[in-house]
Amino acid sequence: MLPEALLAALLAAAPPQLPRTEEGVEVKVDALHQVLTDADRNVRVPDWSVSWEDLTPRSKLRWRVEKDVLRGGRQEGVDRIRVDNGVLSFTVVPTRGMNLWEARCGDVRLGWDSPVKEVVHPSHVNLSERGGLGWLEGFGEWVNRCGLASNGSPGEDRVPSNTGAIVPVQLTLHGKVSYLPARRVEVIVRTGGGELVDIEILGVVDETMMFGTQLRLVTSIRTAAGSTSLTIHDEVQNLAATPQEFQILYHANFGTPILGDGARVVAPALRVTPRDPRAAEGDVTGWSRYGRPTPSYVEQVYFLKLAADSKGMTEVLLKSPASDRGVSVGFSTKELPYLTVWKNTGARENGYVTGIEPATNYPNNRSFERRHGRVPRLEGGASYRATVTFTVHGDAKAVADAAARVERLLEGRSTQIDPGPVPELCP
Amino acid sequence: MLPEALLAALLAAAPPQLPRTEEGVEVKVDALHQVLTDADRNVRVPDWSVSWEDLTPRSKLRWRVEKDVLRGGRQEGVDRIRVDNGVLSFTVVPTRGMNLWEARCGDVRLGWDSPVKEVVHPSHVNLSERGGLGWLEGFGEWVNRCGLASNGSPGEDRVPSNTGAIVPVQLTLHGKVSYLPARRVEVIVRTGGGELVDIEILGVVDETMMFGTQLRLVTSIRTAAGSTSLTIHDEVQNLAATPQEFQILYHANFGTPILGDGARVVAPALRVTPRDPRAAEGDVTGWSRYGRPTPSYVEQVYFLKLAADSKGMTEVLLKSPASDRGVSVGFSTKELPYLTVWKNTGARENGYVTGIEPATNYPNNRSFERRHGRVPRLEGGASYRATVTFTVHGDAKAVADAAARVERLLEGRSTQIDPGPVPELCP
Amino acid sequence: MLPEALLAALLAAAPPQLPRTEEGVEVKVDALHQVLTDADRNVRVPDWSVSWEDLTPRSKLRWRVEKDVLRGGRQEGVDRIRVDNGVLSFTVVPTRGMNLWEARCGDVRLGWDSPVKEVVHPSHVNLSERGGLGWLEGFGEWVNRCGLASNGSPGEDRVPSNTGAIVPVQLTLHGKVSYLPARRVEVIVRTGGGELVDIEILGVVDETMMFGTQLRLVTSIRTAAGSTSLTIHDEVQNLAATPQEFQILYHANFGTPILGDGARVVAPALRVTPRDPRAAEGDVTGWSRYGRPTPSYVEQVYFLKLAADSKGMTEVLLKSPASDRGVSVGFSTKELPYLTVWKNTGARENGYVTGIEPATNYPNNRSFERRHGRVPRLEGGASYRATVTFTVHGDAKAVADAAARVERLLEGRSTQIDPGPVPELCP
Repeated sequence: MLPEALLAALLAAAPPQLPRTEEGVEVKVDALHQVLTDADRNVRVPDWSVSWEDLTPRSKLRWRVEKDVLRGGRQEGVDRIRVDNGVLSFTVVPTRGMNLWEARCGDVRLGWDSPVKEVVHPSHVNLSERGGLGWLEGFGEWVNRCGLASNGSPGEDRVPSNTGAIVPVQLTLHGKVSYLPARRVEVIVRTGGGELVDIEILGVVDETMMFGTQLRLVTSIRTAAGSTSLTIHDEVQNLAATPQEFQILYHANFGTPILGDGARVVAPALRVTPRDPRAAEGDVTGWSRYGRPTPSYVEQVYFLKLAADSKGMTEVLLKSPASDRGVSVGFSTKELPYLTVWKNTGARENGYVTGIEPATNYPNNRSFERRHGRVPRLEGGASYRATVTFTVHGDAKAVADAAARVERLLEGRSTQIDPGPVPELCP
Repeated sequence: MLPEALLAALLAAAPPQLPRTEEGVEVKVDALHQVLTDADRNVRVPDWSVSWEDLTPRSKLRWRVEKDVLRGGRQEGVDRIRVDNGVLSFTVVPTRGMNLWEARCGDVRLGWDSPVKEVVHPSHVNLSERGGLGWLEGFGEWVNRCGLASNGSPGEDRVPSNTGAIVPVQLTLHGKVSYLPARRVEVIVRTGGGELVDIEILGVVDETMMFGTQLRLVTSIRTAAGSTSLTIHDEVQNLAATPQEFQILYHANFGTPILGDGARVVAPALRVTPRDPRAAEGDVTGWSRYGRPTPSYVEQVYFLKLAADSKGMTEVLLKSPASDRGVSVGFSTKELPYLTVWKNTGARENGYVTGIEPATNYPNNRSFERRHGRVPRLEGGASYRATVTFTVHGDAKAVADAAARVERLLEGRSTQIDPGPVPELCP
Repeated sequence: MLPEALLAALLAAAPPQLPRTEEGVEVKVDALHQVLTDADRNVRVPDWSVSWEDLTPRSKLRWRVEKDVLRGGRQEGVDRIRVDNGVLSFTVVPTRGMNLWEARCGDVRLGWDSPVKEVVHPSHVNLSERGGLGWLEGFGEWVNRCGLASNGSPGEDRVPSNTGAIVPVQLTLHGKVSYLPARRVEVIVRTGGGELVDIEILGVVDETMMFGTQLRLVTSIRTAAGSTSLTIHDEVQNLAATPQEFQILYHANFGTPILGDGARVVAPALRVTPRDPRAAEGDVTGWSRYGRPTPSYVEQVYFLKLAADSKGMTEVLLKSPASDRGVSVGFSTKELPYLTVWKNTGARENGYVTGIEPATNYPNNRSFERRHGRVPRLEGGASYRATVTFTVHGDAKAVADAAARVERLLEGRSTQIDPGPVPELCP
């Protein structure tokens, strides 16, 4: 399949909300389609922008899409796309596997303050360093995809080599896709009746090699005009004729202002398991509450199994100490059945942050996950879809509504909280 | 020696065919000389071209040389030179050690369809990854030089360190030179009597470090006007004052349309040895015949010892199933005494390909090859030359002629086919 | 603290010599301030220059500052700043951690002829290669900072991981800072009364990651108008809230014309210890004398403890065979208490060079240095300063004066020369 066909398929799967007039009549939608990168045609556009002034000059919505290239230090040459739907703004980084760097909506910021102050270019990162923790040298984004061949802890796994022999390989933390540049990037801006309909960023990232991984990520990141949400539609494709494993995890990270002393994660958890003795310290039932920045804090990680609605859709809320700001992460437990919550409330300077991480598995080493049946496999030419929606809540009402939705998903069931690590989940 | 002097020496060694008028009088030859890269003078020309329209406007030969820079994905910033002699066209990649990416001549393509769809920039490849198989992340070219310090399998060898101690090092698959950018690149276009004489691309690639490898590759890639051949003249120079080992292998790779079910390699083989039990499976005498794309196929590799003419020149033919298309690889067994044939007729999507690989050795780990006397050594300041010529055959007659030439090299001698691996050749 | 504040603090710490008229009246000083790189503001200026023609057109001093970008081979994309104060010229490389590539003053060159002929871009270097010796693939500069997290031999050390576990990591030779691009670069040119006062290059380099090193180098490299010296003021800052170790070493390297058969290092050494049996070969008392280029030579390394004046300042002189040219390296033993002398008088083609290396420690593996109390530790938010001054001596008188200054530092004390390695200094 050509990339065009793939993208068309994606679009068909998730049609935009068409605008209607007040009388309910559909308005004709025009789509501005701009290719920013296309390795097949040897195209890369360094600078480009479009805004309400160009396409909807009479609109009150001050929307904008802006592409540029980062300069200086370890970020030299990194492509960046800034999207503003008039209410919610966010940054996509094609050079870093179409990750999302940050979002802002009113006074809410989605993201965190990493000790890494630049959007580090892949050429400055050696994933194998520091015992396979090189990934951490560029870790600073809001939403980081982990995958595609593996997404968990570093360490040995075994794979077939070119000679057919099964050989040991050292997997590196969270896989490679966050350090692979997109081979195709497009912007689609849909307008109708003089107003913005939605903005969509499309990207194709290849994690391919001879005698090894042959996976492609096709992503659509879309936000409707004036909305407080964005949705990531991803498709992982097996480009090979033979079966391949894959893994994907959405490492969504949040610091201030949502995170703070007394912030809480509200999840429809059927079961919560501390990953290791550290996570089981103290009162495990307090797993969902965050403390203030604490210099000596060592990360605590919890593995969750969530309830979902009849269609498999679920929602996890992170809310501020005063419950007046928050963010919901919505996804399907059919696509992403495992959720990891990473609490890392260390000193502000060292990275005060929590991760809400829906995934195809828990982020243990792939060899462990395979043993426990949590590594999906794609037949030759097959693909896998996952969708994650982020919604900002800017006031107490929106936060309370989200909390109520999460509560309803549990349908009165209680949460099993394991007192300590469990063999089939925790290595 | 200055690069200029080196290049001059190379040119002197391989003078172009001077054109003559019909009466046999030599025509004066003009040479257009264009420097595209020169690290010593801080020069790199991003875009440049010259063609028949500029220099031989009345010629019927539509020749052209075009330099540009690849964009997008993992190929961002890679230099490319496309050469067309009017009949044969090919692509040289200075950023990837002056490798040749592809050639075309009529409906014959030299090259293959790798799962890697981009000409990957060295900065996106970590040779040490995956147990030393990182080289495979960018493997997609038609002719890939393996070397210069080592060219074989990954794994441990022992070298002197800065302190004089003999220390273990992990060699990586096929060495580094394919991921080193050329420090000097020149184009020479020779014309005479209103016609093109030949086109030559010169390149200098340094594989150097303190307390380690200090080797330089000086290459000339030349094609005569309207010919169906090109010739690579390489010189490997020991830049140090002290002796150094080196290795070089020409990993020439072919897929469709020459490769197909029933394609054959026709070689003047005195001896054929299967590298491992896998290569010895079934009827070893069928080693020279290729099957159709087969998803479960595991590579089969054969080590060959070839006959040559009185000057040491030999020729290997790869021909299509219908014997109506083919390519010959010509070289000297004095320079490149060992030939490897790599059969990898896996699924088309996974890489359906064969490699014809003349070299200074077999591509086993260098420590094994040294033990068996197959690692050449250069005294301080000394150099080694190797020449490889590729010729496209576009019809049954040309293929039959090539097969007859190969046959004559054997002078009636038979081929010893070993039933299985042999200790001194196969680790 | 903002970089601006940091830089201001640095400036305050080292005020320029203000020019005076012949009557001793201070002249008003103007400062041209040019930002060349600022990752926070997404700025990188490829080409820029300023010279006496622009600012002091009636001056006899032909000074100049020139910024450009290197092209070709492994140096493609490397930023370079060339400074000429009218008498002394030198090159700063922001892309390589603000290292100094070379200096020239009259017929004296500070620097050496490495087998590496390019200023290699960090993206072409894998520090982990060759058993942790990858650093040597780009080693060619005059002054190379080693550090910041570690600066010594490769090999295992143990550090806390994200999970709080103490895990083994493989340190690589001389650390990372030489392969980290500066995130902020500024030029300040001070003039007064129609004359140049001084030129200063400021740089900020981050060696940061999540769950690991969080150190920043803030450097000022300054030279006064028409002087034969330059001074490096460095500050290493702990950006974390928690304590961190750090190490810094100034790998200052010299070849011809100062180095030659009979050249000598003149140091106020209280103690000299050969690092290993090789350094103890022959007459150890000859440690300070250099021989001619010798192809089979294996490096000899000496660890020195120096005398200093009452303020802690010391000076080491390297002088040419005829004692008519030389260079002094001045620093404080309070800041840099350990000096290493690296003798590597191998063949000219292989790198005929000596290193004079003041540091916070000896360049053994960090685990060994820690065990012996030579790894400094910075509290959260704290910083460490070090200053090194290089002065060229262009004639016999200047060399003799420097030698006399060094002699005076010893105040008649003799030098203890250990006959062989010593357990607490040599692993």
